[in-house]
Amino acid sequence: MKIFGKSYRSVWMEGSKVVMVEQRLLPHKFELFTCNTYESTALAIKDMVIRGAPAIGAAACYGMAQGALSGELWKAEKLLAASRPTAYDLFDAINYFKANYKGSDPKKVADTYADISAERCKKIGEIGEKLIKDGSRILTHCNAGALACVDYGTALAPIRLAHSKGKKIFVWVDETRPRCQGAKLTAFEMVQEGIPHALIADNAAGHFMQRGEVDLCIVGTDRVVLNGDIANKIGTYEKAVVAKENKIPFYIAAPFSTIDFSCKKGADIPIEERSVDELIYAEGLDESGRIKPVRIAPVGVSARNPGFDVTPAKFITGIITEKGIFKPKDIKNLKKKGK
Amino acid sequence: MKIFGKSYRSVWMEGSKVVMVEQRLLPHKFELFTCNTYESTALAIKDMVIRGAPAIGAAACYGMAQGALSGELWKAEKLLAASRPTAYDLFDAINYFKANYKGSDPKKVADTYADISAERCKKIGEIGEKLIKDGSRILTHCNAGALACVDYGTALAPIRLAHSKGKKIFVWVDETRPRCQGAKLTAFEMVQEGIPHALIADNAAGHFMQRGEVDLCIVGTDRVVLNGDIANKIGTYEKAVVAKENKIPFYIAAPFSTIDFSCKKGADIPIEERSVDELIYAEGLDESGRIKPVRIAPVGVSARNPGFDVTPAKFITGIITEKGIFKPKDIKNLKKKGK
Repeated sequence: MKIFGKSYRSVWMEGSKVVMVEQRLLPHKFELFTCNTYESTALAIKDMVIRGAPAIGAAACYGMAQGALSGELWKAEKLLAASRPTAYDLFDAINYFKANYKGSDPKKVADTYADISAERCKKIGEIGEKLIKDGSRILTHCNAGALACVDYGTALAPIRLAHSKGKKIFVWVDETRPRCQGAKLTAFEMVQEGIPHALIADNAAGHFMQRGEVDLCIVGTDRVVLNGDIANKIGTYEKAVVAKENKIPFYIAAPFSTIDFSCKKGADIPIEERSVDELIYAEGLDESGRIKPVRIAPVGVSARNPGFDVTPAKFITGIITEKGIFKPKDIKNLKKKGK
Repeated sequence: MKIFGKSYRSVWMEGSKVVMVEQRLLPHKFELFTCNTYESTALAIKDMVIRGAPAIGAAACYGMAQGALSGELWKAEKLLAASRPTAYDLFDAINYFKANYKGSDPKKVADTYADISAERCKKIGEIGEKLIKDGSRILTHCNAGALACVDYGTALAPIRLAHSKGKKIFVWVDETRPRCQGAKLTAFEMVQEGIPHALIADNAAGHFMQRGEVDLCIVGTDRVVLNGDIANKIGTYEKAVVAKENKIPFYIAAPFSTIDFSCKKGADIPIEERSVDELIYAEGLDESGRIKPVRIAPVGVSARNPGFDVTPAKFITGIITEKGIFKPKDIKNLKKKGK
């Protein structure tokens, strides 16, 4: 991806250090965050310095490489596996590292995983781009962009490609409270790429769908399971239900690494409950140029903050992967075929 | 309503001055806002010092009284009518004042309107409370509480009464971005009344509905029209669609003053588009105790900010009014009956 004109991946390794784009400061400040140890990499995942299923996977793989380098691979695995519970890529990456690291150069193993991950997203872009017509108005939720992956993005990969091919597209960007990954990250990617867009309140998505101003929805996912259900950022379920009501196609974009063939149905996916402070406060740039929280809700308030929700298969038009677009009901057959 | 133990209405008149609870500072600071002229009252409505359909109506009626006192009634009418476009109570209140002010004491006319308005909400509470079972978990959107009315609230009136009668209820409070009237005002009312509740991201409402943790939805409305469609705070439509999908009753609470018998269908209701700054920034209390905005979205972002949406009749279980609970399809018959 280009950030201020220069090419970046969301995460990479330099020597024994894992370097990542510090996403908690975006879109206000562009900084790199360096993790000297696997402990620090696990914490960076947990604290959302880096987020987004494929990016979490790549960061975890690099964390495993750090674990191998320091001779504490199994400690690293334990710590990394516990960093975020919902994204399946995390476990895919850990398993990849364990299967491919046989005393060889650990950085090389992780680099290969990141390369494969980026390549998958590029392919998702090529396949998904065909769904986007000239003039399409596409709604996306959260950030499933290059920042959420190693590069290109999942949901944003087809959008990027359609735009670069000269199709006149327009992107509705859900704000995505409580952490505002839409307002902060997807909007940032849209501005960086010069893609026409409008940031909207999460509450407004249905309004524009109802008014016939949304042609297509594409979102990412943290986990696809056997029956075709998916887990994604909280709010995805609402958008999918309202899209179906308005006969708007609703696509999920995800590499195969996000498919959990061992999980039967959406209700079995662990849903992370995050700190209620994410809801009680909003974080942004103050007038003095510092990124700070402001308190929204009253003292004494109670709150609940699930980070994800489950969208049942029946609301999903198709799942765009690096190997083609599949119907949710076909996911179980992919396992049989050993894809 | 009780605020820190003392009884208040949201708006009243002292001499020729209109006094209102300054809602832009809640829940952080409790202050009264005084409007010396009808111009200032119209501006207070426009700038959302006071908001919520019935409260806007009462404030506008007091503004008309100020206009009459200053001998500029028709100027006052023009200014007040242009202050907010969506809430029908505004026009109901202006019409009430014109029909009842015949050179008598203008304050008395407006006081009577406010008394009637408060009484209607009290009645809505009594009628709506019967829908709430012991143990009910009720979802509400935005603030349709005492602050949005002269007193008691519309959606919150039945909830208040159920709680005060000793029913064990629980309220899901949608944050309601972009202005966060749920997080700021409804949460404040819940804390003041000691009603068990949880503030949630607007995105999370569907998740809790899907998990069977919502028994009932009650929201307010800015306008009910002839075919039973309603306009309410942006996001109401999404909640109604998802509630129907999950077979959860979805009630609208509104006095007759909110029914626009001259408007045939929801698509004809003017929808206010508000400043995109509401979306680009979030406002709250900073560490030094000042209420300030922080910037969320990047420089260069585009945005859209509709303040309301239309919920079609088919998603509405019933409309709780001071004269009983009506099906949306019955609204047109109420006109015929001249209710």
